Amino acid sequence: MARTPTHPDVSQFDLQTVLEALVDPVRRSIVAQLDAAGADIACGGFDIPVSKSTATHHFTVLREAGLIRQYYVGTSRMNALRRAEMDETFPGLLDALTARRAARRGG
Amino acid sequence: MARTPTHPDVSQFDLQTVLEALVDPVRRSIVAQLDAAGADIACGGFDIPVSKSTATHHFTVLREAGLIRQYYVGTSRMNALRRAEMDETFPGLLDALTARRAARRGG
Repeated sequence: MARTPTHPDVSQFDLQTVLEALVDPVRRSIVAQLDAAGADIACGGFDIPVSKSTATHHFTVLREAGLIRQYYVGTSRMNALRRAEMDETFPGLLDALTARRAARRGG
Repeated sequence: MARTPTHPDVSQFDLQTVLEALVDPVRRSIVAQLDAAGADIACGGFDIPVSKSTATHHFTVLREAGLIRQYYVGTSRMNALRRAEMDETFPGLLDALTARRAARRGG
């Protein structure tokens, strides 16, 4: 794996790819946790019910869709939500998918 | 098939089910066409690149997710977007997924 993972440019954001990333509840939870934290989170710092290798796959899908930016701090891989870029490209989408996390219908 | 198809009540709307319905581009197109028309459309009246039986499957998925309401007028099955109910339950979601239909990134 390259030390600096590749990320799509905003001009490459694609709604179908973003929806395919967000239709998975674990990936939606990762995005919601980043959004709620308002800070970057290391790969090991999320509350998700999957193995480390499965989590790595989910982070990759999110990164390739443009939803998160990954970078290293020492040996920790950090994850940043690309919220402003997503909001600019798909206004309201992340709001709609993260705002109701605490509601009974889940999210 | 029953003459009056069953529909979920608003209290049964589930974000995961709605997203699984909307992740399919043909189903998203059906929703967008209903939204753009601002009127109910018969099953045969949509511009979608699938067979009649496949279209029937897509309408069923949308109905069971609560996105459309189906009813008969004579022998025609009509489709109505449950926009207000969806907006009330998942504010901004349909706006985010239908507003950019005409944009280059598709929808």
